[in-house]
Amino acid sequence: MGATTFSEQHQITFYETDVTNTVTPAMLINMIILASEDQTTSLGVGSDVVIKLGIGWVVTQYKMAITRLPKVDETITISTRATCYNRYFAFREFWVHDAAGAECVHVESIWVTMNHQTRKIVSIPDDIIAPFQSEQVKMIPRLGRPKRLTPEEQLLTKQYRVRYFDIDGNGHVNNSRYFDWLLDALPMSFLTRHDLTEINIRFENEVQYHHVVTSEATLMTDVSEPIVTKHRILMENGDVATEAEFHWQPIIKH
Amino acid sequence: MGATTFSEQHQITFYETDVTNTVTPAMLINMIILASEDQTTSLGVGSDVVIKLGIGWVVTQYKMAITRLPKVDETITISTRATCYNRYFAFREFWVHDAAGAECVHVESIWVTMNHQTRKIVSIPDDIIAPFQSEQVKMIPRLGRPKRLTPEEQLLTKQYRVRYFDIDGNGHVNNSRYFDWLLDALPMSFLTRHDLTEINIRFENEVQYHHVVTSEATLMTDVSEPIVTKHRILMENGDVATEAEFHWQPIIKH
Repeated sequence: MGATTFSEQHQITFYETDVTNTVTPAMLINMIILASEDQTTSLGVGSDVVIKLGIGWVVTQYKMAITRLPKVDETITISTRATCYNRYFAFREFWVHDAAGAECVHVESIWVTMNHQTRKIVSIPDDIIAPFQSEQVKMIPRLGRPKRLTPEEQLLTKQYRVRYFDIDGNGHVNNSRYFDWLLDALPMSFLTRHDLTEINIRFENEVQYHHVVTSEATLMTDVSEPIVTKHRILMENGDVATEAEFHWQPIIKH
Repeated sequence: MGATTFSEQHQITFYETDVTNTVTPAMLINMIILASEDQTTSLGVGSDVVIKLGIGWVVTQYKMAITRLPKVDETITISTRATCYNRYFAFREFWVHDAAGAECVHVESIWVTMNHQTRKIVSIPDDIIAPFQSEQVKMIPRLGRPKRLTPEEQLLTKQYRVRYFDIDGNGHVNNSRYFDWLLDALPMSFLTRHDLTEINIRFENEVQYHHVVTSEATLMTDVSEPIVTKHRILMENGDVATEAEFHWQPIIKH
C-alpha cells in the first residue's frame, strides 16, 4: 500500500502572479506548503502536535519540473504525498494540475525534523510519520546538487535586508522569500522573455531578521539549450544560505 | 436605491499573515482589491473593458478603521460598494467581517480614472460607473490628510529598491507593497506589541521598477493614547510617493 495522497484546489489571485500574470515561484511554494500543512492537520499530526515534541519540519531541498506555470484566475489542484522516508529524511512529492487535468508542475522535496532549541536535525519520530503510510526505505531519492557558481564567472549581484514581513508564524524567514531574492537578481528583460522549466534549490543555512544577504547569479548565455542560471545567496560572513539552479526556455510569441 | 453591494469569502492562509499569525495590512489590501475587481467583472465593466478605453482605475487614498485584524485560518467575508462619485472621484467602501458576523475592518477609499499613456486623471466615463448604481454627488466624503512628518522629529529610515516581483499585472508597483515599506521602518519590538486601529494612506506619486525609495517614520511616544506613527515614502528626487498615518494600541497579554 502506498502513501496517502492529499489534494486541494486553489484559484490563483492577481496578487499571487507577476507582471506577466503568471504565478510566481514564491507563491507556488506557499501553495504547496499549505497543501502539506493541510494534509498533516487532517491526519492529526499538524504543527500544533509536532511543536509539542519540541521539533518542526524543515525543507532542505526542492526540485521542480515545470511544464507550465499557471496564470491568474486559473483553478489548480495541488496534490501531495509523503512518498518515503528513512531515519533522518522524508521525501515528499507535490503535483499541480490545471482544470483540464494536465500536469503543470511536479515537485520533489527533502524534509528533516529539527529541534527548536538546538536547531539540530533529529531522527524523525515514528508518531508523526506513521499516519502518512509512507514507505520506510534505506535511501531516499537523491535530487542532485544545484550546479555551483565558479569564481571566474561574471556575477549579477543584489543585496537584500530581511524585513519584518519576511518572517512567518514559525519565527523564521518564509522559504518562499528565497525564491524572490534569487530570481530578482536576474534582469527584468530576461525574466519576462523566458519560461522556467526546472528549479533545483537547496537550503544550507538559515538567515534571520535584519540580516543582509547577497544574491548572486550567473547567466550562461554561451551554452546551447537549455538556458541555465546558477545562483547562490550568501550571508554576511560569507557562508552560503542557499544554492539554486534554474532552467529556462525562451517564450515564443505567436 | 443605493449602490450594489458585492461580497465574497476568503480563508486566510499562513502566507498572508505575519510572525504573530495576523493578516498583514498588505495582504488585506490585496484581498479587498480582489473583491472590487470581482465586482467590476461581475457587472461587465472589468479591467478588460476599462483598458479598451485607454484608462485604468487608480486608488489615491485609503482610510481604514480596524476593530481587529483577522488571524490565520479564519474565513472572512469581504463586502464592497461603490458608494458615490462625482466627475473625477469615486468613493468606494469595503467591510471585512469574521465568521461570527462581527465587523473587523471598515475601509473608505478614493478612486480616479487615469489615462494609460499620459498618466493624467480623466473624468470618469458614464459607461463604466453606471452599473454600480452609485449615487452621483457634488462632493465625495473627504478622508483628511495623514498627519505630516516635521523636520525636527527624529526619523527611523530604511531604503527599498523596487523589485521585479513588486510589479503587478498592470505593470505598476502593487499598492500593497507600500504598506510593507511603511511598516517595516518600525522596530519589530514595536510591531509585535501593538495592534493597528486606524490607517490613513495617501498615494501621491508612482514609483517604478529599480527606483530606490526611502521609508521614513516617526514614533510619537511622548503623547497619550492613541499611539500614532507618521510615515512617508520619498523618491530619489525627494518627491513624496506616499504619506501615511497609523494608530496603534498596546497588546494586552491575558
